[in-house]
Amino acid sequence: MIIAVDAAGGDHYPQSPVAGAVEAVKAQDDLKVMLVGPQAIIEDELSNYQYDSEKVLVHHAPEIISMDEPPAQAVKTKRNSSIVAGNGLLKAGKCNGFISAGNTGALLAASTFILGKLEGVSRPTIAAIYPTVKGPRLLLDAGANLQMRNEMYVEFAQMGSVYVKSIMGVQDPRVGLLNVGEEEEKGTDELKDAFKSLQDLPNFIGNVEGKDILTAKADVFICDGLVGNLLLKLGESIPPVLEKFIGRAAQKMNLSREQVQLVSKVLKTSLSEFNPDTIGGVPFLGVNGVSMVGHGGSSPEAIKNMILNAVKCVENNINDEIVASLK
Amino acid sequence: MIIAVDAAGGDHYPQSPVAGAVEAVKAQDDLKVMLVGPQAIIEDELSNYQYDSEKVLVHHAPEIISMDEPPAQAVKTKRNSSIVAGNGLLKAGKCNGFISAGNTGALLAASTFILGKLEGVSRPTIAAIYPTVKGPRLLLDAGANLQMRNEMYVEFAQMGSVYVKSIMGVQDPRVGLLNVGEEEEKGTDELKDAFKSLQDLPNFIGNVEGKDILTAKADVFICDGLVGNLLLKLGESIPPVLEKFIGRAAQKMNLSREQVQLVSKVLKTSLSEFNPDTIGGVPFLGVNGVSMVGHGGSSPEAIKNMILNAVKCVENNINDEIVASLK
Repeated sequence: MIIAVDAAGGDHYPQSPVAGAVEAVKAQDDLKVMLVGPQAIIEDELSNYQYDSEKVLVHHAPEIISMDEPPAQAVKTKRNSSIVAGNGLLKAGKCNGFISAGNTGALLAASTFILGKLEGVSRPTIAAIYPTVKGPRLLLDAGANLQMRNEMYVEFAQMGSVYVKSIMGVQDPRVGLLNVGEEEEKGTDELKDAFKSLQDLPNFIGNVEGKDILTAKADVFICDGLVGNLLLKLGESIPPVLEKFIGRAAQKMNLSREQVQLVSKVLKTSLSEFNPDTIGGVPFLGVNGVSMVGHGGSSPEAIKNMILNAVKCVENNINDEIVASLK
Repeated sequence: MIIAVDAAGGDHYPQSPVAGAVEAVKAQDDLKVMLVGPQAIIEDELSNYQYDSEKVLVHHAPEIISMDEPPAQAVKTKRNSSIVAGNGLLKAGKCNGFISAGNTGALLAASTFILGKLEGVSRPTIAAIYPTVKGPRLLLDAGANLQMRNEMYVEFAQMGSVYVKSIMGVQDPRVGLLNVGEEEEKGTDELKDAFKSLQDLPNFIGNVEGKDILTAKADVFICDGLVGNLLLKLGESIPPVLEKFIGRAAQKMNLSREQVQLVSKVLKTSLSEFNPDTIGGVPFLGVNGVSMVGHGGSSPEAIKNMILNAVKCVENNINDEIVASLK
């Protein structure tokens, strides 16, 4: 199995992707990684590590798509970028999956254009992994599809259910539609129509509310990309903001240094589930290939976990399962 | 000044409204409260308190609109309910404001129908008060308007700015439009149009994201009611969920009883800003009168604070200011 790794994506390249890739091959037997990006930069970084050179390959892709570049144009004009080349390698069967911490819009565009869509899928989607009291759960769409069509709600529900079950290990996942209230007649006309269509799915539990996310009332939360993106980014802002709130309270309460250290440690432990490094990344669901994206700030640990997640997606034939679920 | 208080609304009536009303008149000179609801129930509850009977009036309204009753129908059929009667008293000039912890939909419907809209307002709105690192800030619409029209974005921005400045004491409030990214061209067509219209306001700072709410990048966050309601309820779920996360971490770390108590105390202090009791309630902005709604679970403290907030709205002529801002 070969997983291609974007060595020129994210805020910390080439360090994070190179270090993460080297760690990943140590953690998983029969795995090779293919670092995609400017060869000289990659090799220079690789010289800092000990690794099996048969397991860490390099594919030269000199162009770089920056994090804030307009996606469609970048993908069209930078054919020799790591993002376009990585998806090209996947399409050509030179690797089994591709992971990146780079420009999400460019990655989605490149994956959709180059890999194509799976049979039965109207639009690929980006899912977000949300921490809950029961462990990580899935929320989608997380920003790729601001305008929904009715059939997309059902497709996202099916794709999300497959991912949550196969990759995240949640048995019998339940699907909830994010809305302003539980009753069937709540929400916009679009949501009322979505409710009706989702009712055909045996694992649809109905409308769920904002208060039901962190408590995992559902395992797969369905919404449009505007709602999903706002909820995702609000969620990501909770840990740092909380540290500020708690720091202030500690000051107000005149705690000793030891007491502050204890509180910080408890906070850190309790918020470890919010740590995006543990998750690594999320797949573009609905594209014909295993293509995953991680946070721009991905650490080596995050890259490693994203690579291992991609391996899991390949091994579990996730895309075959998705196609079967949509038939 | 007389503030009418719904004594038959919320999860804890008549206790919370009666206790809160009695406390409010003790806290504010020249204030009378008028408890609206079934007279016998109110008088029975009042018998538990010491109060100045000239300052605590009772208005008999025998019917009760429950928390989950369909709003429009309830308001139409239950003319002698506290919700309809309270707004009627306000319309007739028998009181200066009306507050309730009852059925929000019914309150909005009754306020809109009975009081009417302010000049220049297309649709009244419910705002949510969001805790941030800089203190409470305003987010609207919080669920009253799921379908927006372009002009409503600007009206909500103006009304929110007036409230935040006059009542919440934020000088030079900044307005942000909640979106998936900062750039002007981000978001749905509706949001792009809203951006263009909002640019006419001197205090519009552009698009803001989900991560900008808790950090108070803006003081007034504008969004449609679906987005606002989901963000509001997610926010409200943070404190109890966090307690669970921290409790688990404490267990995992084998803390002593004293250590757990310390951590709990710090957490409680730091989350006190999330406590809806401190806020009391929010006004229906855009209706022709001071009509406020609080959380269904409002405590006596919350009711008292909501009454004092209503006094502030009346004293600051908030509705005159809103009308002036929309001219």
